[in-house]
Amino acid sequence: LVTERPPFSALDCCPVSGLSFGGLEVRAGSLTEQARRLRRESRTFDRETLEAVAPDLIAIDDCIVQDPEFDWDVGAPVHGLPPLRALIERLVGYLNDFRVRHDLETLLVVNLTSAAPTSGGSDWHTDLAGLESIVADDRKDLFSPSACYAYAALSAGCPLINFTPNPETSWPGLAELAARTATPYVGNDGKTGETLLKTVLAPMFAHRNLRVLSWEGINLLGNNDGLTLDDPRNRRSKISNKEQVLAGILGYEPHAGVTINYVPSLGDWKTAWDLIHFTGFMDVPMTMQFTWQGCDSVLAAPLVLDLARLMELAARRGESGPMLHLACFFKSPLGVTEMDFHRQYDALLAYTERCLAGKPPADPTVPRP
Amino acid sequence: LVTERPPFSALDCCPVSGLSFGGLEVRAGSLTEQARRLRRESRTFDRETLEAVAPDLIAIDDCIVQDPEFDWDVGAPVHGLPPLRALIERLVGYLNDFRVRHDLETLLVVNLTSAAPTSGGSDWHTDLAGLESIVADDRKDLFSPSACYAYAALSAGCPLINFTPNPETSWPGLAELAARTATPYVGNDGKTGETLLKTVLAPMFAHRNLRVLSWEGINLLGNNDGLTLDDPRNRRSKISNKEQVLAGILGYEPHAGVTINYVPSLGDWKTAWDLIHFTGFMDVPMTMQFTWQGCDSVLAAPLVLDLARLMELAARRGESGPMLHLACFFKSPLGVTEMDFHRQYDALLAYTERCLAGKPPADPTVPRP
Amino acid sequence: LVTERPPFSALDCCPVSGLSFGGLEVRAGSLTEQARRLRRESRTFDRETLEAVAPDLIAIDDCIVQDPEFDWDVGAPVHGLPPLRALIERLVGYLNDFRVRHDLETLLVVNLTSAAPTSGGSDWHTDLAGLESIVADDRKDLFSPSACYAYAALSAGCPLINFTPNPETSWPGLAELAARTATPYVGNDGKTGETLLKTVLAPMFAHRNLRVLSWEGINLLGNNDGLTLDDPRNRRSKISNKEQVLAGILGYEPHAGVTINYVPSLGDWKTAWDLIHFTGFMDVPMTMQFTWQGCDSVLAAPLVLDLARLMELAARRGESGPMLHLACFFKSPLGVTEMDFHRQYDALLAYTERCLAGKPPADPTVPRP
Amino acid sequence: LVTERPPFSALDCCPVSGLSFGGLEVRAGSLTEQARRLRRESRTFDRETLEAVAPDLIAIDDCIVQDPEFDWDVGAPVHGLPPLRALIERLVGYLNDFRVRHDLETLLVVNLTSAAPTSGGSDWHTDLAGLESIVADDRKDLFSPSACYAYAALSAGCPLINFTPNPETSWPGLAELAARTATPYVGNDGKTGETLLKTVLAPMFAHRNLRVLSWEGINLLGNNDGLTLDDPRNRRSKISNKEQVLAGILGYEPHAGVTINYVPSLGDWKTAWDLIHFTGFMDVPMTMQFTWQGCDSVLAAPLVLDLARLMELAARRGESGPMLHLACFFKSPLGVTEMDFHRQYDALLAYTERCLAGKPPADPTVPRP
Repeated sequence: LVTERPPFSALDCCPVSGLSFGGLEVRAGSLTEQARRLRRESRTFDRETLEAVAPDLIAIDDCIVQDPEFDWDVGAPVHGLPPLRALIERLVGYLNDFRVRHDLETLLVVNLTSAAPTSGGSDWHTDLAGLESIVADDRKDLFSPSACYAYAALSAGCPLINFTPNPETSWPGLAELAARTATPYVGNDGKTGETLLKTVLAPMFAHRNLRVLSWEGINLLGNNDGLTLDDPRNRRSKISNKEQVLAGILGYEPHAGVTINYVPSLGDWKTAWDLIHFTGFMDVPMTMQFTWQGCDSVLAAPLVLDLARLMELAARRGESGPMLHLACFFKSPLGVTEMDFHRQYDALLAYTERCLAGKPPADPTVPRP
Repeated sequence: LVTERPPFSALDCCPVSGLSFGGLEVRAGSLTEQARRLRRESRTFDRETLEAVAPDLIAIDDCIVQDPEFDWDVGAPVHGLPPLRALIERLVGYLNDFRVRHDLETLLVVNLTSAAPTSGGSDWHTDLAGLESIVADDRKDLFSPSACYAYAALSAGCPLINFTPNPETSWPGLAELAARTATPYVGNDGKTGETLLKTVLAPMFAHRNLRVLSWEGINLLGNNDGLTLDDPRNRRSKISNKEQVLAGILGYEPHAGVTINYVPSLGDWKTAWDLIHFTGFMDVPMTMQFTWQGCDSVLAAPLVLDLARLMELAARRGESGPMLHLACFFKSPLGVTEMDFHRQYDALLAYTERCLAGKPPADPTVPRP
Repeated sequence: LVTERPPFSALDCCPVSGLSFGGLEVRAGSLTEQARRLRRESRTFDRETLEAVAPDLIAIDDCIVQDPEFDWDVGAPVHGLPPLRALIERLVGYLNDFRVRHDLETLLVVNLTSAAPTSGGSDWHTDLAGLESIVADDRKDLFSPSACYAYAALSAGCPLINFTPNPETSWPGLAELAARTATPYVGNDGKTGETLLKTVLAPMFAHRNLRVLSWEGINLLGNNDGLTLDDPRNRRSKISNKEQVLAGILGYEPHAGVTINYVPSLGDWKTAWDLIHFTGFMDVPMTMQFTWQGCDSVLAAPLVLDLARLMELAARRGESGPMLHLACFFKSPLGVTEMDFHRQYDALLAYTERCLAGKPPADPTVPRP
Repeated sequence: LVTERPPFSALDCCPVSGLSFGGLEVRAGSLTEQARRLRRESRTFDRETLEAVAPDLIAIDDCIVQDPEFDWDVGAPVHGLPPLRALIERLVGYLNDFRVRHDLETLLVVNLTSAAPTSGGSDWHTDLAGLESIVADDRKDLFSPSACYAYAALSAGCPLINFTPNPETSWPGLAELAARTATPYVGNDGKTGETLLKTVLAPMFAHRNLRVLSWEGINLLGNNDGLTLDDPRNRRSKISNKEQVLAGILGYEPHAGVTINYVPSLGDWKTAWDLIHFTGFMDVPMTMQFTWQGCDSVLAAPLVLDLARLMELAARRGESGPMLHLACFFKSPLGVTEMDFHRQYDALLAYTERCLAGKPPADPTVPRP
């Protein structure tokens, strides 16, 4: 965990052992089954580990609500579901049940759903009143499940972490709701591999005045994420998040391609290959390539724990609104235009130093470029 | 040039057109011949460019002293050369001649020699008095040509840039000499490719708490540098510079291999391939590879111009001693333990802001980790 | 050239100096301009070379007919063009003019057009009578420019080389026409890079009983081919040619993806990156990656010359129909199911040995797997 | 297994279940411990597999003689060991014991030792009489443990497979011994990864008349092989085997570098990266790179089983001397100059067809280039 390294380990974060896990699942199947499948297909961990955590998985499975009704598609006609208002109330009910059952001080909501088509951009999405009209009119074509999760969490005062590319958490109406309930939130789209490398490497090209002509990124994925992203409607947000980081860092827009292909045999192992075509002195063209072979869950899981610990701390410190100091964890950080990973990390360091010095958070915590 | 990008472009640097070029060459052959060979073997630039600069190359060739006596090898017996004292005086003479001939305000010395075996580490090397004894006793086994260049430059008050891996510029005795003549100096070993990437990427592994098990770097070079480095005695300093950057950034020492192979057909194109073997959450092993295909001269030349402009500025501002703010240009920056490229770059930014605000340089200019 | 290596160099092929070049061009611009642009954008050859061949390029330009009417799209409505019959006669006229002008013994037609949408598959395409009906009815939606070129060449008895992925040359009706005029023909789709490697490497996996799970191929192209192939309608044939080679060699169908992306800055340099995911003993998954960085024209041009020389020889020897012994030059060799490059090459060797021994070609010349 | 694919599966090979395994081990430790360590460090197989074969491993361990005296180094002084004659007799005794204990029809010897320094090249090594003098004079500086294994196997009439790079099996004196005892033998140096790819890819460059300028191969190994090969004296034979394949295929000697580095964290996973620098038409330089990430044991083990089955068959058929048809399994095939993998494979096919047709083996079975 990042939060276990100095100086972050000196923060007064909740220990991992102090966390209770529950959830909402729209698909059939249990955590235990998923973990077994992951081991079998992706060789990520061994049987000893699985056996050691088996009782925990069973206990968490018992706290996961299976509710397949939260699975509509804003791009397709929806029939036979309860109205949005009722669905949101159902979610708030799930949250309250879990809070009571575990006698929790703080209840965090983490959105970990698959990439999905999204709505947004209408006049109704620009403020909270508009969102409430959408809910009142039961417009499921304008309000996705991810919007319900965010709406329910923020209205119930639960700090919200959007680890998915689904962009509803950035709707202005939800910022208004978070402000009204004084709730912290953060997102979008966990930065675990290729985009992390882009935001690490692109500053070097800028700082050395090497001009990037083209940055072509290929992502091969074999897990459920890969399957979902194989549908062009689902991958629109993700590709946009992956593409937009370069222009912000470089100060111009190189040719930037992002390809996501589904390769089932890779299982949970994702392989990213990027070709960077650039020129140096006297316009001589040169190239860099990299191949990143990582295990998706293993890269993402610790970031979710880090975010949970840091959001719980922020909530305890009375912070609210978008958590700018957590930008380094996301491809498309809410409220932050700085895309350079190192500057984002420096913002987390600065926040940590203020915390350790007993100071309130600066506003804003991330320097604008 | 880095110095042509904001905010550095706002510094009061000497324009490139204000520079005069001369030099000392131990090998036969002219710049014009070298440039033709580079074009023919490496396709770096085209004939039009070569024709356009031909008169300039001829003019510079006229200012290059051919002196093959500065080519001894500290690891081998040396016979028949004038004593060190005379050789150093000869160098100072060359410098004065060039200064007078071009009516220069400032004369900078840039060491661009090949990697070479080095001495150092004796009791005589620890202070200036010791170095003077070595010179007085004509101990060429303890005083390499690079030591002569540095000694002559600093004693003549010429700002010194050591772009080579030869480590003499870091001898304490020379620091004493620079202090006595109030001369700025900087080095060692220009950071143009694989090591640049190491110092850019390694912080990411640290910041994400991904543990690097092994970082294996392969460098294939086809130019004279490659030929020189094919001799293990010559590459010792360079490999040491390339290896030591990781421990400083990561806080532990991974297995770090550096291989430099001579592949003549590559000409001036160097290819670096690195394999980074690391573990994430639950100790799952993952890998990253990169291939960097760059033209050595094209990557190095602009950095030399940047350094010349920034050193001339520093000299004009009355700065002296090791120029800590220029660490980002070097593999093994003198006086600086910070190896993270981004922090080194931030030090250059901070220096620039102080300059633009009319402030004297901070001391030290680079934060210690 | 392949034909300049033993044993092929012993064949009685026409020397390259015995060839005269002309052509049909639908785009504006001259060969000279294209060659200049290639030099400028792709650094493939230097100015000396360009100057040396300038008179030849001008002479060839003089033999190239500019005729933009041969540029319709079978997938879009076509208006205002002369009927197919007239267009084909026009082509035959061009061929006769060129033959007379240069007093040629043999006139070869090489199709080097861009990838294009294609028709085919209707009842009319199954025999020559059907094709003649299509022409008579002026069905430009069923008869592409590439079909016209092939029809004109074969009806005029000109040996035909289809270097493009456009599959019209494989229409049964054209085989019938070639048989009637006793004309040799060959195609489809020159094998210059990624697919060449596939047909070289896949046999190794088969022979070692290593099971290929996935073979994901990424092709980045910056030239006009890349631009054309960026349109999904144009790349259908090419991707199909690239994909189908594996199943034939391996004996089963692995997951095989082919991506073609347009990256303009690469100019004529194409970069292919392939990831091969396979299992060995005890089903342990392993990977191979390769990156192929080649210059498209430089890889293709010598094959065109080789094919011209070998087709002229075949015509002189009285051979006709599909030239099975030339399969190794093509991604989708006409009449040949053997996809293993080495077996295809052995077929060329066997043919050459028969020629050198004064024997007629075997029938068929390529062993069926 | 290769021998489980058609047409080889039709050969009358001994089933794997018909094999009994024993051995000689100079190091401490059991197979069971090694297998556990392999699982722990390299994640090659899972615990279920290990548990399933545990009884077999114990049974085989019981048939492995631990004899640390067979571990001298021909490059260093040897003291305190019994004379060579006694050591060889001891080996023959081990072989006879194992044969009797398992009531074997055929006893095969497979040399699977680590790479080691070697002697050879003296006048005594040129014939069997010379070898016998060496043994009689107890010259352990001229007779390595691998020489003992080969001598003992061949004198006892046991078919011999040399899977190691140690070249003693190619000594002319041992060929004489094999002829005297009418024993088949084969080697050297199993071809499992980088060299396999070289012998697959190099023919393509030759067949396309693409001139290879440089072929630089980097091998990173983390297992005991890697540790052993880290010593330059041990890797001499292996590097020579890896280098010599190119000239035979290409017909000229490109710059060919082979680097073998020990990277412990890789465990049994070896990573080979090769850069191939070549020119095409008009001498335009281009590059190919590949990365091969394979598990060493998993690649080697099935080849050993294949060789055992094919050697047992050969012995049963009364074949003797070097088994030329098995060249495709080796980096440096005994008696064969053909290095093209595909031609070597064709030789195995031709042999198989003769077997299936009931014919005796051709002599020689591999066509000379």
